[in-house]
Amino acid sequence: MQRYFIPSNNWHDQDVIIKGQDAHHLIRVLRSHIGDQVICNNTDGKAAICAINAIADKEVQLKVKEWLTEDNELPIHVTIAQGLPKGDKIDFVLQKGTELGAHAFIPFSSKRSVVKWDDKKSRKKHERFSRIVKEASEQSHRNRIPKVYLPMNLNELLKISQSFDIKIFAYEEEAKVEKYHSFSTIVKKLKKDQSLLLCIGPEGGFAEEEVALLKKNGFTPVRLGPRILRTETAALYALASLSYQFEELGCF
Amino acid sequence: MQRYFIPSNNWHDQDVIIKGQDAHHLIRVLRSHIGDQVICNNTDGKAAICAINAIADKEVQLKVKEWLTEDNELPIHVTIAQGLPKGDKIDFVLQKGTELGAHAFIPFSSKRSVVKWDDKKSRKKHERFSRIVKEASEQSHRNRIPKVYLPMNLNELLKISQSFDIKIFAYEEEAKVEKYHSFSTIVKKLKKDQSLLLCIGPEGGFAEEEVALLKKNGFTPVRLGPRILRTETAALYALASLSYQFEELGCF
Repeated sequence: MQRYFIPSNNWHDQDVIIKGQDAHHLIRVLRSHIGDQVICNNTDGKAAICAINAIADKEVQLKVKEWLTEDNELPIHVTIAQGLPKGDKIDFVLQKGTELGAHAFIPFSSKRSVVKWDDKKSRKKHERFSRIVKEASEQSHRNRIPKVYLPMNLNELLKISQSFDIKIFAYEEEAKVEKYHSFSTIVKKLKKDQSLLLCIGPEGGFAEEEVALLKKNGFTPVRLGPRILRTETAALYALASLSYQFEELGCF
Repeated sequence: MQRYFIPSNNWHDQDVIIKGQDAHHLIRVLRSHIGDQVICNNTDGKAAICAINAIADKEVQLKVKEWLTEDNELPIHVTIAQGLPKGDKIDFVLQKGTELGAHAFIPFSSKRSVVKWDDKKSRKKHERFSRIVKEASEQSHRNRIPKVYLPMNLNELLKISQSFDIKIFAYEEEAKVEKYHSFSTIVKKLKKDQSLLLCIGPEGGFAEEEVALLKKNGFTPVRLGPRILRTETAALYALASLSYQFEELGCF
């Protein structure tokens, strides 16, 4: 069944109004009729099966039929801080990361980021990013849309990092040494509803002074398996592993 | 250090010859000099640091300096049978699947595959696929290049499936039922060096009769976490989880 995330001002008790692009999608793309049912998610993470009551030119009115009890959210709140990669790789990280349960994304520029965005470009990109995570949340049956921060630099990221329970960074060199920090030793420390910040460098990885800065700020370097992953694959490895540990093995 | 997979007829005891595109890459792109070192992988899964002895117009001669003892191969031989998806999503599955340790890939056409390839197109695509997995193997420091089968249909896949220790298929419906087959129950049965065949449907999933056929042929339906993954994300979830279980947790 089609899903939409509806802003809170379009919920009025048991009545829901779908406007804008979602209304267009429902009316023009799916060619929905009165009586058809869709799932509407509210901003508190709850979802309901709703039936279409009326279809106007640019909006659709629905009534709640049944509240759902499903919870498809990863029990650890994982924020992916992704060093700005080349091309559209960041789109990929946002889409796949949302499917795999990320709680939030922080795009950040670091020494070896080839890409440089000014304020205007950052804001435009941010709009696009918000659309990607909304659509991926609907498609993957998430209860919440992950938050996407405006792109920032490493110093701003370090400030934000202070509020997280556990902080790690993917470090290529860690996959090459014998006494590495295994990702599993970090995962085993996590408790339900705790927050994890995973920081991933751009294509060239982190500069030495950035590694020192991350360590000084309480980030532990980890390896994510023995193979060398591309920058856009690292977040997916971590999120899939966390889902496997907490949602499939069911271990805390 | 740059890596290349060298065919066995270009190894002569401690002497290695690099030809073709790899020679072009080494001479023209990296602008290598005599004395420079690269890692050469042979077809038995061994790798050595080699030094350049001579550079000719279209080939490079090297001598083995030191055999490496590294083994970056996933201890379970995972073959990904991927229902042909739209666009270039299969390229993505091959590249990321190689990074994450897949042993082999079987592209197959099924009822809901939108894409149809004739023999000529299949062969052309296969050349491209072989290039993608070779490059991803070099980049991710694999010891072996995964095998890519020529595209086949579901019946041909079922025949090949008989030689696998464990056979599963990703089934969207399995993520929606309460008494689902968790992926972890399958993973826990696996022993070192066993073979696992994971079958993934195209965008529309499997048709009912295909599900029946898969079950009849010993495939167990599994869910890969509670969220609904796109077809191109399923293999990555499974491979990352297997790496986490066997390479990070270190459990058999």
